[in-house]
Amino acid sequence: MNLINENFLELQDSYLFSTIAKKVAEYTKENPDKKIIKLGIGDVTKPIVPACVEAMHKAVDEMGTPEGFRGYGPEQGYDFLRDAIAKYDFREHGIEIDEDEIFVSDGAKCDTGNIVDIFAKENKVAITDPVYPVYIDTNVMSGRSGKYNEKKGIYENIVYLPVTAENNFIPELPKEKVDIIYLCFPNNPTGTVLTKDELKKWVDYAKENKSIILFDSAYEAFITEDNIPHSIYEIEGAKDVAIEFKSYSKTAGFTGLRCAYVVVPKSVKGYTKNGDEISLNKLWNRRTCTKFNGVSYIAQRAAEAIYTEEGKMQIKANIQYYLDNAKIIKDGLEEAGFKAYGGVNSPYIWLKVPDNMTSWEFFDKLLNEVNIVGTPGSGFGKHGEGYFRLTAFGTKENSIEAIRRIKEWNI
Amino acid sequence: MNLINENFLELQDSYLFSTIAKKVAEYTKENPDKKIIKLGIGDVTKPIVPACVEAMHKAVDEMGTPEGFRGYGPEQGYDFLRDAIAKYDFREHGIEIDEDEIFVSDGAKCDTGNIVDIFAKENKVAITDPVYPVYIDTNVMSGRSGKYNEKKGIYENIVYLPVTAENNFIPELPKEKVDIIYLCFPNNPTGTVLTKDELKKWVDYAKENKSIILFDSAYEAFITEDNIPHSIYEIEGAKDVAIEFKSYSKTAGFTGLRCAYVVVPKSVKGYTKNGDEISLNKLWNRRTCTKFNGVSYIAQRAAEAIYTEEGKMQIKANIQYYLDNAKIIKDGLEEAGFKAYGGVNSPYIWLKVPDNMTSWEFFDKLLNEVNIVGTPGSGFGKHGEGYFRLTAFGTKENSIEAIRRIKEWNI
Repeated sequence: MNLINENFLELQDSYLFSTIAKKVAEYTKENPDKKIIKLGIGDVTKPIVPACVEAMHKAVDEMGTPEGFRGYGPEQGYDFLRDAIAKYDFREHGIEIDEDEIFVSDGAKCDTGNIVDIFAKENKVAITDPVYPVYIDTNVMSGRSGKYNEKKGIYENIVYLPVTAENNFIPELPKEKVDIIYLCFPNNPTGTVLTKDELKKWVDYAKENKSIILFDSAYEAFITEDNIPHSIYEIEGAKDVAIEFKSYSKTAGFTGLRCAYVVVPKSVKGYTKNGDEISLNKLWNRRTCTKFNGVSYIAQRAAEAIYTEEGKMQIKANIQYYLDNAKIIKDGLEEAGFKAYGGVNSPYIWLKVPDNMTSWEFFDKLLNEVNIVGTPGSGFGKHGEGYFRLTAFGTKENSIEAIRRIKEWNI
Repeated sequence: MNLINENFLELQDSYLFSTIAKKVAEYTKENPDKKIIKLGIGDVTKPIVPACVEAMHKAVDEMGTPEGFRGYGPEQGYDFLRDAIAKYDFREHGIEIDEDEIFVSDGAKCDTGNIVDIFAKENKVAITDPVYPVYIDTNVMSGRSGKYNEKKGIYENIVYLPVTAENNFIPELPKEKVDIIYLCFPNNPTGTVLTKDELKKWVDYAKENKSIILFDSAYEAFITEDNIPHSIYEIEGAKDVAIEFKSYSKTAGFTGLRCAYVVVPKSVKGYTKNGDEISLNKLWNRRTCTKFNGVSYIAQRAAEAIYTEEGKMQIKANIQYYLDNAKIIKDGLEEAGFKAYGGVNSPYIWLKVPDNMTSWEFFDKLLNEVNIVGTPGSGFGKHGEGYFRLTAFGTKENSIEAIRRIKEWNI
């Protein structure tokens, strides 16, 4: 009799986005004349930039000729892309990362999900809260979370690190020892950041405790302020304790093209129960070669084009467009009397829900009274309750109109 | 202290292809004038067909416009592709598979590797031998294989099913009960097939024992003979016990584009230790939504184009080219006095090494004396010893020339 992985049964179903869709559909049905503005969207909307489009057409043509055709590529990614990453994302910024420390993949979601494969079940995992649900769910699936405690709304073996206005969105070092730490900054969903000094505390903690930091850097391209690290490897010692995930999804609008990469420095060590040091780079390489067959050649050529002069300029213009929206939304919210966070180094604006409403009560009110859709903070975890996420991925016109409505709103 | 997954330490390093490369490089250095023919290659060589090239150009253009741009797609694949698969790969052949039983992925290697996530560690796994190493290695990583026994050359908890000339390449049902069974037919590496009657025995076994068959159908497009199943779902009852993996890699030359799919029928059940029935379709869907973000839109449009009239014709012509090579090689080998298997419903020819040589002894002799490179059968497992794989993925000219040399060879 085949037996299932019963850890899957511990997963909590998320009805977040389906509930939002249902509520919006109902409202639209009853109010067909109302123009709803959707600022809940976590996906880019600007098209792929011309430099990447051109590179893809060229790659498609190559694939159609006997001379240009490429079959299986290296599982870890083509040298042309790994070289460009090492040069432009790291060496140009004074960080030494070798090409064989870079693994090109089809998405940071896959990478942050699959990385758990190389770790033992026994590791104690710390996760910021609110959070991108993939970090939690993949640890549930692999048996690292323990049981779900309905009453407390938490998994018993996970160490939750609150990130709220109370601590200025700076998670505190855990009191108990943890082995694996997920950090995502600029943060999804709060849009907040850590300074180099704050991040250094985590690197020092990890060094002291032989922990691993899984650093999700998906929103790095949105950083505008100085002293905010674009890569964890800007922090001294991080190359000994951190694995970094980078995605082209938000940087270059690749959500539909699928290309990302993960950096696993050769100096990052895991341990056997006997205390033997093992290279995580080697383990990840073995996993990659066994369970993955490389990223589409066409997507890799598109990613390479991001690093050309024209590619860089075109992408920067798109990011600026979203950042302008973020500023419109954030400033507007504050002018309207709301407490709003994020939005400066991030496409996400994290709003404190007024009058002790719950996140969902605010959702309903915002939808019904000013026809704006956002995402209830409680959908991202217990400590997201009382907050609300708006995103800058809509159009400028809609961002302006949404703020106009909110300012006139008699809440 | 972070702890690694120590199952990784049980993996046996495969030096198969690196050793081949090294030996070829050495020979070439010492004999720069010799023209080496490579028939070891397991990758397609014909370019992507025009129908797919055209579809990709169109998709690239769409992605570059505000109206046509697509961000995150459904994790399970776009409806346009799932509909085409259900219609052309199944319904047209009298098999009822619903769209929501089809999961589009970036490769059968990933799927056959990742599928182990949804099963408990305690399952007993049966694997044919010789075999595609991914089936074994992913079970080693997830702790299902037990220790490697150096002396016997096997993992202690894996049930090996020999596929050799002695049993006419038809694996026997295991004597002990097994829970998960990997079958790949047309087979890699032997190129041999199972008839419907033979496959039915496995489906019946699985039904009786509540086992799951993981059926890898990557070479289905090469089937030329009647009564050889193109899908395991042609067998009565298979929809209750089988998960099928299909790949566009060998069918349409997509090794560098990355698109495949897996079928998990809603009627396939797994069990908890308490004996509760659980839908594997639901578990796989949850895994897919949590750890995957869909396949490149461009690759999915290319896959869709395979099902157009012109796409089908163009792809058939490429497959026929490889099949013609396979026939040249197989017939030639037999005329030269070798025992050769496969090659009729497969791009692989599986050669019995003469004179009790080992696979590697034959490799050296073939390279040194007639300058042909193939793959030693022992590289695919213990029961591959004494065999040798040649493939039809080279050019027609090289296939003819290789056979000319072999016929003149005074072995």
